[in-house]
Amino acid sequence: MRARRSVGLGIVMAVSVSVAAPAVAQPAAPHNLMPVPSRVVFEGGSLPIDARFAVAVEGTRDPVLVRGVERTLLRIARLTGLPIVRTGGTVALTIRSAKPAGSAPSVSDDESYTLKVTSAGATLTAQTSYGALRGMETFIQLIEQAPSGWAARGATIQDAPRFPWRGLLIDACRHWIPPDVIKRNLDAMAAVKLNVLHWHLSEDQGFRVESRVYPLLHEKGSDGLYYTQDQVRDIVRYAADRGIRVVPEFDMPGHTGSWLVGYPWLSSGKGPFEIGRTWGVYDPVLDPTNEKVYAFVDRLIGEMAALFPDAYFHIGGDEVNGKQWDASPAVVAYRTQRGMKTNEDLQAAFNTRVSGMLKKRGKIMVGWDEILHKDLPKDTVVHSWRGQKSLADAASQGYRGILSNGYYLDYIWPAAQHYAIDPMGKDAAGLPADAQKRILGGEACMWAEWVTPETIDSRIWPRTAAIAERYWSPATVTDPADMYRRLGAISRQLDATGVVHRSGYGAMLDRLANGGPTDALRGIVDLVEPVKNYNRGRRQKFTSQTALIRIVDTARAESDESRAFGQLVDRYLANRADRDARDAIVAALTRWQVLARDVQPVLDAPLLQEAAPLAESVAAVSGFGLRAVESLEKKWRLALTADETVALNKAIAPVADVLLMVAPHVRKLIDAAGK
Amino acid sequence: MRARRSVGLGIVMAVSVSVAAPAVAQPAAPHNLMPVPSRVVFEGGSLPIDARFAVAVEGTRDPVLVRGVERTLLRIARLTGLPIVRTGGTVALTIRSAKPAGSAPSVSDDESYTLKVTSAGATLTAQTSYGALRGMETFIQLIEQAPSGWAARGATIQDAPRFPWRGLLIDACRHWIPPDVIKRNLDAMAAVKLNVLHWHLSEDQGFRVESRVYPLLHEKGSDGLYYTQDQVRDIVRYAADRGIRVVPEFDMPGHTGSWLVGYPWLSSGKGPFEIGRTWGVYDPVLDPTNEKVYAFVDRLIGEMAALFPDAYFHIGGDEVNGKQWDASPAVVAYRTQRGMKTNEDLQAAFNTRVSGMLKKRGKIMVGWDEILHKDLPKDTVVHSWRGQKSLADAASQGYRGILSNGYYLDYIWPAAQHYAIDPMGKDAAGLPADAQKRILGGEACMWAEWVTPETIDSRIWPRTAAIAERYWSPATVTDPADMYRRLGAISRQLDATGVVHRSGYGAMLDRLANGGPTDALRGIVDLVEPVKNYNRGRRQKFTSQTALIRIVDTARAESDESRAFGQLVDRYLANRADRDARDAIVAALTRWQVLARDVQPVLDAPLLQEAAPLAESVAAVSGFGLRAVESLEKKWRLALTADETVALNKAIAPVADVLLMVAPHVRKLIDAAGK
Repeated sequence: MRARRSVGLGIVMAVSVSVAAPAVAQPAAPHNLMPVPSRVVFEGGSLPIDARFAVAVEGTRDPVLVRGVERTLLRIARLTGLPIVRTGGTVALTIRSAKPAGSAPSVSDDESYTLKVTSAGATLTAQTSYGALRGMETFIQLIEQAPSGWAARGATIQDAPRFPWRGLLIDACRHWIPPDVIKRNLDAMAAVKLNVLHWHLSEDQGFRVESRVYPLLHEKGSDGLYYTQDQVRDIVRYAADRGIRVVPEFDMPGHTGSWLVGYPWLSSGKGPFEIGRTWGVYDPVLDPTNEKVYAFVDRLIGEMAALFPDAYFHIGGDEVNGKQWDASPAVVAYRTQRGMKTNEDLQAAFNTRVSGMLKKRGKIMVGWDEILHKDLPKDTVVHSWRGQKSLADAASQGYRGILSNGYYLDYIWPAAQHYAIDPMGKDAAGLPADAQKRILGGEACMWAEWVTPETIDSRIWPRTAAIAERYWSPATVTDPADMYRRLGAISRQLDATGVVHRSGYGAMLDRLANGGPTDALRGIVDLVEPVKNYNRGRRQKFTSQTALIRIVDTARAESDESRAFGQLVDRYLANRADRDARDAIVAALTRWQVLARDVQPVLDAPLLQEAAPLAESVAAVSGFGLRAVESLEKKWRLALTADETVALNKAIAPVADVLLMVAPHVRKLIDAAGK
Repeated sequence: MRARRSVGLGIVMAVSVSVAAPAVAQPAAPHNLMPVPSRVVFEGGSLPIDARFAVAVEGTRDPVLVRGVERTLLRIARLTGLPIVRTGGTVALTIRSAKPAGSAPSVSDDESYTLKVTSAGATLTAQTSYGALRGMETFIQLIEQAPSGWAARGATIQDAPRFPWRGLLIDACRHWIPPDVIKRNLDAMAAVKLNVLHWHLSEDQGFRVESRVYPLLHEKGSDGLYYTQDQVRDIVRYAADRGIRVVPEFDMPGHTGSWLVGYPWLSSGKGPFEIGRTWGVYDPVLDPTNEKVYAFVDRLIGEMAALFPDAYFHIGGDEVNGKQWDASPAVVAYRTQRGMKTNEDLQAAFNTRVSGMLKKRGKIMVGWDEILHKDLPKDTVVHSWRGQKSLADAASQGYRGILSNGYYLDYIWPAAQHYAIDPMGKDAAGLPADAQKRILGGEACMWAEWVTPETIDSRIWPRTAAIAERYWSPATVTDPADMYRRLGAISRQLDATGVVHRSGYGAMLDRLANGGPTDALRGIVDLVEPVKNYNRGRRQKFTSQTALIRIVDTARAESDESRAFGQLVDRYLANRADRDARDAIVAALTRWQVLARDVQPVLDAPLLQEAAPLAESVAAVSGFGLRAVESLEKKWRLALTADETVALNKAIAPVADVLLMVAPHVRKLIDAAGK
């Protein structure tokens, strides 16, 4: 599931970002906790943290817990700069967990915890080691700068997740995402209490796991860019250590182009086949009439089921366009003989057999919502990418489900837009309680057509922290302004997990400037965002082997500065006596004028050839904005000339696949001044 | 050797940064190679680099070479953003190495190579795999942006190092430096062709290696912050893979305070002892009269000699202040009985025995220049920290030597100051050729009193790249302006090795601002440098457990912007008709005025309490500078008031342990305007 906008998406995109009432569960004093805990009370006082900070584990010394404590100390050391000792410190945090972690995390783990921090010390208690891991992340988030050093804020917290399935899908196929990148993202996931890595491992563009039973899969289908089985085991262990399940996805019977490079006979069409290098839905598909195909899939599932210990196994099942099947007399005859009316019936029969292969290995099948069919076993989990309605339908039919519609990170939506979407949406609201319980949670999806190891972190973070809050925190926690305030703090904290969503920005700007100065360039790129949804793909043809190093790749998914400017504009237009807002608007516009001028010398760098119109637009909107403010102050009526209107519209339209996010806000000023 | 300024240092510090004549070996066209190769000719043309770039290894497939190729592909992928394939690419670079790497690199390895790049392909030939590794780094540095993508510049290069010992000392004792930080620095070292990691592993402040024969060394002497033997072996292998030798240092008989925490009887003074937490020369020292001490050292050396395969073993031997020996009747009696006149004689006797312990294990002793004594075997290597003269003396006496005087990174000197110092300095120039050959090279020293895992990279890089060039390139390569131009490029390239000297800056600024905006703060911190030499330690007492997260820790070792401003001022004062220089000066001064104003809101952050005078100084010098330019233009005579002179002097003096580097340049303007 991916690639094209489809019917369901339109509905979600129409959901507006509503400013909800403040959540009842939120404390009065502002804090930086994300996700917000179920219950938190701040009672004053704080626990000093210095280099001698130490943690005691009482009861069983579960290795998962002990390693979690080690990581916590390291994270605190990174956040604070304190050279925290490993032996001989003074215990300031005591952890008790009733039960050790099992051999691997499961969807039914108790992740609740209680955390109490006072000036005398902190106590964390949990039912399981996984709960204790979640509590340690909260403890880290309580650490703040104090005048005399560092301290954890005094608090009493009782916390448990709203949904048991809180995932992030990482597509390692459209672009290769190496093991170290997966690992640092697992650390960041754990920091915001996500507990499922949905690892999208096979696609038209690549088969990314070493297969010993069918080695041509990775040898011919990956350009040599695949995970060895040792690397897979290492990552699965790494995730388990952080209380994160790894659900592998081997998408079938469509999206299997990379399988066919080495094994063309699996296809119902004619080969030879090549690794996909461009985006979209491909025609090649497995042949559902060939018993040898089932034998192949069975053996492959056997191998992969052993490699991934989780009880759930994702078979994809999306976007079979049916062209190859319709074109094959053998398939058409097979379909007719068995009385199947549609390709959907044919695929359902295929899925049912695959489901059996999984069942005999103790696995539960998960698939995209196309797989929903009455013949499927009721323990199947339906993963909805097409809409909340299909999730509710599945739940009402007795299937469990998870939601990804509305959580596509590659749409480059603002965090607030994802944040406003609830897995238990309107469609599910009318369901009986037992059906509602079948909605297990959701998954943010990082499809990888437009990300590389260098850029993926900045597409996942910090926005995924807001989605993680949606999955963990009470449904009443919905205030986007408070979310953004905390998101800024969490974004900075995530640096210490190793993700490079912030630290990688400078190097990308350096490369854009090709040795030139980056100050003004940074200022300009701070104002833009990549185009939304799939508009980038539509505008220009790239292949999977193109370097993604343009302005659009460098730009952050959300321009904080533009959002802040928009708020200033709204404030000022609501109250023209607001001098602070007015002055801040003028300062910003003036600064952008300077940027547009100062950036000129680097625009002859190869990668900035496309940026000249952008710099022109920055200059134009800055000038228009200043005139608008002057007009509003002096109660003149502003009217742009025809040429100026063209320039404004140009500034609002995409250029070089980015949007100048401040332009629409400037238009608001102009519109107000034109009245 | 470290901690206090001593006699020899004064001499070196007086060496001025002279602008040498352009090097004869340098090509006409500017390039970004660092270190500059012995011979390089650019013949036009370039070799396109795309995602299908592949490397062929001809002849023996030495694992060191194969892994080097893999790393090269990864680095190119990171630098260019290209998703480079691992199989199925098109060979663009062919590598031939006559001899595989040995089991470990040695000081006599042939590191020469020849590299030819044309538009049709590239060929790299070397006598050994280590030479091929050096050549691959040069190949990476030839890659540039072209209008249509990436390309390696066409060139013919013949290259070999000037000195065989090109080192970086990392002190892992004053602050703990974890394995991952060592590793990323090894990658950066390899990128600039350094070939020795001098690993300073024991000190008053910490014994940093697991000892199985004397476990209380690390158990009591490290706060639990030590390398396990597995980690040591892993790092030694990692270094060897990059053609880098690892020379361990176990400093004795002084600097052994951490040994005494677990084994107080080793001391000639009275215990109990504690881990050192502050800086300077400590009194505790091993007891040279106790045979059990020699047995202990012998067994410890036996264990450590087996752990570190290199032929050289550093025993420190510096800074024995003799207080404990003089205070011990037993030591005084021992000295007298053996007819020794001084503690130096006593230490020489100790060293001679240690040298024997090393010799029987096939190791050659290295020590700081205090060890120089006629009784030492002639294969001993003298490591000079006190001056070039002692190095020349040692060489004339038949000892080999390496220079670190002048290469102390913790002095926070500008790169050009280190760059101007040659291991074959004036003192060595008069030596006969065979004595000159005994000067093996040099080592940059990263003493760790004022660095942490977070900041160490920014103290080592990029300045160490200039020092590496001093050790590798022809002696005639001395132009600091060209060095700085290339240093900027290399600094950006080093990002791809994993060192965080650039990428870590933002997170440190974020922490300083404590959630506030960092744009103006960044602008201010860009203008400052830490105080030089050991002025920081003198001004304020810190312990090894203090977080190093202040402005002084965040500031870069060299302010590029200040240096550029100084050049503008010099240009303008040399020629007042230079409007470009004048305009750039005014633009800079105006910008700083704005920064000084805009930074105000974040100055109430806990870590910025000390920054208020700095912001005032920025405002003051900006204003003075603008008045000076106006006076110069209008031929007015500028005279600062008494208060203004105080403010200017205050701006030039250290504040919060940093120097506002632009202030002296502004004073030049004021002085010129006052004439």
